[in-house]
Amino acid sequence: MNKIYVVGIGPGEYEQMTIKAANILKSCDVIVGYTVYVDLVKEHFSDKEFLTTPMRKETQRCELAFEEARKGKTVAMICSGDAGVYGMAGLMLEIGVNYPEIPVEVIPGVTAATGGAAVLGAPLIHDFALISLSDLLTPWEKIEKRLLAASEADFVVCLYNPSSKKRHDYLKRACDLMLRYKRPETVCGTVRSIGREGQEMEVLTLAELAEKEVDMFTTVFIGNSQTKNIDGKMVTPRGYRYE
Amino acid sequence: MNKIYVVGIGPGEYEQMTIKAANILKSCDVIVGYTVYVDLVKEHFSDKEFLTTPMRKETQRCELAFEEARKGKTVAMICSGDAGVYGMAGLMLEIGVNYPEIPVEVIPGVTAATGGAAVLGAPLIHDFALISLSDLLTPWEKIEKRLLAASEADFVVCLYNPSSKKRHDYLKRACDLMLRYKRPETVCGTVRSIGREGQEMEVLTLAELAEKEVDMFTTVFIGNSQTKNIDGKMVTPRGYRYE
Repeated sequence: MNKIYVVGIGPGEYEQMTIKAANILKSCDVIVGYTVYVDLVKEHFSDKEFLTTPMRKETQRCELAFEEARKGKTVAMICSGDAGVYGMAGLMLEIGVNYPEIPVEVIPGVTAATGGAAVLGAPLIHDFALISLSDLLTPWEKIEKRLLAASEADFVVCLYNPSSKKRHDYLKRACDLMLRYKRPETVCGTVRSIGREGQEMEVLTLAELAEKEVDMFTTVFIGNSQTKNIDGKMVTPRGYRYE
Repeated sequence: MNKIYVVGIGPGEYEQMTIKAANILKSCDVIVGYTVYVDLVKEHFSDKEFLTTPMRKETQRCELAFEEARKGKTVAMICSGDAGVYGMAGLMLEIGVNYPEIPVEVIPGVTAATGGAAVLGAPLIHDFALISLSDLLTPWEKIEKRLLAASEADFVVCLYNPSSKKRHDYLKRACDLMLRYKRPETVCGTVRSIGREGQEMEVLTLAELAEKEVDMFTTVFIGNSQTKNIDGKMVTPRGYRYE
């Protein structure tokens, strides 16, 4: 059947995929994705046809998926984490306007925010804001405004894309902005390679985070005014009257 | 082994659970949870011991889980969606201080924000803020401040607990606040009973949303200034230079 599923495969570990996502990868004809993500799932679905495109070739990857579906195939386009959080679901639906005969269904997955939160403890129990520090597609002024607004309103903040080779000081810049409203002792956390080999986590203060170097495989969490460090775990209370 | 897993079972449908969550429910000795969530999984794990407590008895539910683990059992405490997003993971880690010999591990799941987003299309592709409208445990002034800050900084906003019997006008109040910064034509969406029987979705404008009645089973999405209605789907562009 010519149909496309845009599938979030979770943070990395095969078991963090949903049962539905795994069933779709088992039953589809062809799996399309960015090379790195295809390598993550390949061993579990070795009888499938795989098509990959490199990073920054997102439009071509989408068109490739639609062209395959046009041949009568069932296509799974895979994304790490959740396909709808900084993922390919949006672009697929935009490009899908040119292929009205091909239905597109989005299959949700565990995104790095909640996958990383589980490793750190429970930092996202209450209202939070998710912000990407990548200014490749968003003006830095807009990112800055969001960091300030989220800090002033005491949101827990989760940062995606906190760093890259060209943006090595962006996390420091973001922390300095948040320090205008959040205390230096605010409990923060970092998780690297969530659900993958070599997973690492650290709980630290915002003042310490501002001096820390992280890489592009790291997800960063900044607590709200209630967030605590409980035996090395980062925990934001919901406010249940626990006595 | 006396260990507790705090497990997010996803929005409702069995298949939206991760493989890891299902494996833990299969291998544990006892499943603890709020009555409604236990009913959702019971048929799939019928050989297990189940212990339930009603709503608003969260502290007792946590203590029950620790007491069971103390007997040498492996316990799965289940939450709908993700255990770390307005879920029980935080309270479990807080109460766990009294049971230092019992390890607690959080198993992430698909939360209503990403599960609902997949139904609507791709509303959360870019920076978003998650806000609960329940003022049972949070002062309304704080909720109000967060709604205004998130709107002014042009976040996509996802609302949990948009309504209840006692708070039937809260969604309207929230929309009126957001209308100070977001245009009345802003593309919005609602999803009811995500992944469960009778699932419903609607894409509408913020002006229309302000006049709509929703119930406590509904998750609400308010777009940013870029969010579009594409053939009845709610899509926020990431900003890929798609030409």
